[in-house]
Amino acid sequence: MKIVAVHVTPIAISDPPLLNASGVHEPFALRSIIEVETDNGLVGLGETYGDKPVLEGLLRVKDLLVGLSPFDLNGLWQRVLSVGKPVAHGVELDVAPGSQASSAERKIFGAFEVALLDVQARSLNVPVYELLGGAVRRQIPFSAYLFFKFSSDVDSSYRPDAWGETLNAEQLVAQARTMIDRYGFGSIKLKAGALDPDHEVECLKALKRAFPNHPLRIDPNANWSLETAVRMAQRLQGDLEYYEDPTPGLEGMAELHKATGLPLATNMVVTDMDEFRRNVTLNGVQIVLSDHHYWGGLRATQTLAAMCDTFGLGLSMHSNSHLGISLMAMSHLAAAVPNLTYACDTHYPWQDDEVIKGGKIAIKDGCVTVTDAPGLGIELDRDALAALHDQYLHCGITNRDDVSQMRKFRPDWTRKKPRF
Amino acid sequence: MKIVAVHVTPIAISDPPLLNASGVHEPFALRSIIEVETDNGLVGLGETYGDKPVLEGLLRVKDLLVGLSPFDLNGLWQRVLSVGKPVAHGVELDVAPGSQASSAERKIFGAFEVALLDVQARSLNVPVYELLGGAVRRQIPFSAYLFFKFSSDVDSSYRPDAWGETLNAEQLVAQARTMIDRYGFGSIKLKAGALDPDHEVECLKALKRAFPNHPLRIDPNANWSLETAVRMAQRLQGDLEYYEDPTPGLEGMAELHKATGLPLATNMVVTDMDEFRRNVTLNGVQIVLSDHHYWGGLRATQTLAAMCDTFGLGLSMHSNSHLGISLMAMSHLAAAVPNLTYACDTHYPWQDDEVIKGGKIAIKDGCVTVTDAPGLGIELDRDALAALHDQYLHCGITNRDDVSQMRKFRPDWTRKKPRF
Repeated sequence: MKIVAVHVTPIAISDPPLLNASGVHEPFALRSIIEVETDNGLVGLGETYGDKPVLEGLLRVKDLLVGLSPFDLNGLWQRVLSVGKPVAHGVELDVAPGSQASSAERKIFGAFEVALLDVQARSLNVPVYELLGGAVRRQIPFSAYLFFKFSSDVDSSYRPDAWGETLNAEQLVAQARTMIDRYGFGSIKLKAGALDPDHEVECLKALKRAFPNHPLRIDPNANWSLETAVRMAQRLQGDLEYYEDPTPGLEGMAELHKATGLPLATNMVVTDMDEFRRNVTLNGVQIVLSDHHYWGGLRATQTLAAMCDTFGLGLSMHSNSHLGISLMAMSHLAAAVPNLTYACDTHYPWQDDEVIKGGKIAIKDGCVTVTDAPGLGIELDRDALAALHDQYLHCGITNRDDVSQMRKFRPDWTRKKPRF
Repeated sequence: MKIVAVHVTPIAISDPPLLNASGVHEPFALRSIIEVETDNGLVGLGETYGDKPVLEGLLRVKDLLVGLSPFDLNGLWQRVLSVGKPVAHGVELDVAPGSQASSAERKIFGAFEVALLDVQARSLNVPVYELLGGAVRRQIPFSAYLFFKFSSDVDSSYRPDAWGETLNAEQLVAQARTMIDRYGFGSIKLKAGALDPDHEVECLKALKRAFPNHPLRIDPNANWSLETAVRMAQRLQGDLEYYEDPTPGLEGMAELHKATGLPLATNMVVTDMDEFRRNVTLNGVQIVLSDHHYWGGLRATQTLAAMCDTFGLGLSMHSNSHLGISLMAMSHLAAAVPNLTYACDTHYPWQDDEVIKGGKIAIKDGCVTVTDAPGLGIELDRDALAALHDQYLHCGITNRDDVSQMRKFRPDWTRKKPRF
């Protein structure tokens, strides 16, 4: 089995005005959809970031894969390295607060690796989780991912949404209730770092009162100084399942853990093996939020999981705005990882667009179900892909920039971090 | 694809009177041959230890695999755990100097895992290395594995061998020359810890003079006290590629490294993830000799390789007396591991018996070649298997015991370690 063609299609998906440490989500989030065709007529699918530096890297690699066996992941890695680091053409890669240019090769590798694993599994007529070692669970738990947000009325570029504004405790509890009623989530994550920390903590405490049996997490995306993070920890003590990236840097997190004893989680300071190694020495974080999109694919994330097991670290999963291909890649991975110790994050309920046949994937009882269907178990909707690509071509965004978007509402907004 | 039958056949293979830290190899070494049959008519092969505790573990697990998908390695692990730790029935598990009962489950898992990977690859019509991520090399370098040895005349149970006695420098250089002329090895490992340390070091220096361009290793199997190991290090400084397990314990190795600066290798003190983690703190060894037979199979050894890469450790490969199935499993693994930084060990030239069709696998220019043939690329010779099983039934050995064997020649021989 050989690869005969690879297609990379950038798309733009509608995104609501969700607030975070950097600013506010733009009206569209960018993704790249990967299709890998083989000489036996199969197609493997992948999804990753659509920002210009990643997209350019994908485009530079894709034709080098023609002739490669879809099993040859080492060959894929060599080809990714052969094109060098993506050049950002003067724009900063800002795919998510905290993401690093150093992992560019692993981002590009991981995007193709998922598509290659999908086609491997399809060629065997088995699901991807089977290829990854077999399912230890078929119901993959996700958490309710709550955001402070503007109403979509603030800017006509946003698609109208029924969520409305979420800036206070009452609105946040309502958001949580809708999210939980609709999807059955059994745990809650609050994206913080957007508003005044004391206010955010008040809001979290309102969630605690409204959902006393739901484990709670708060994620200020490193937007709190160590002093603020310690002070909020004193207020939050006992309310949290874990405390995610409150303050910048591994050293800062280590000091915070020492000062508070709270379990700290991260998708910002342990994002590659070098940082993993440093964390072993510093004990900055106790839970790693894995993300196959930047750890280098599903196999590399399995290695990360084994390392977390070895070093006594908890394991969960991070997400960015994404569609169903990423959701199913995350789910198949999670199905095969024994030591997934926490429900995974997903932005999925915030996205109305979809690029796969059958529309949005169901989340029931807080879980995505993996089936016996071959590969990732999904097929591309080519009409939807064309429409979302068209949306990409017309949306005017080529790099995520939550800071500039926020300046439309607050002209004095800065990139400053930690802000509080 | 489902497993319909699993066969485990213990065999005994002729072994020469090779000396080591424990004593002397018995006339026969024990192995278990695994066959995993699937409902589509394929057979996957595995080979591992044949000593009673491992054999009993294999026999207790094997029928639980019927009905399992050969891809379901997590399911295999659950079944291995379900039968509990093998019971040694009053005999000590002594499969190799330094082996640990704690890794019994991983030994049993790994034995079946190789056979499952073989059948996975056969079902895909690809070589095992392809399944492991693709070959970064197709010529797998091995080192010449030299032993002090008795002549086979010392005990009529040993099969007559042409190697004769090796107890002094001249004989050792002759052994090395034969080994290198015959197989083209590019590096040399000396199994030490058997004779007086100063004499062994003299012998190593004779090898250095005879083969000045061959990297040299010495492995006393923890049979030297720290003081002896430091003293020998002073004599060996500059002669060694690495210094393998000279002295017992991770702490001892750490002190030795601190005292001498020599790169230390091990297959004795980093044999599982707990020890790996301790080594990160202690910096006892700088090179891990992996062995899929006790690390839990090929995938787990890939994880170990990634961890060595992360923590800046070198990687090589350990062996026990083995046949061609193990050799090809080692070779396919080595083909797919980018950071294999040293030539692998193998006892293979010391074994005349074989259990695969076509007889002994060729080693040319010091390398085993992996081909495009499906799976491990080898087929079982059922007549040979029957004969070697018959040899097992009649050889009178069910557990390796180099100490007792040595007492036949030296009645006052003890298990004492370190001996020097």
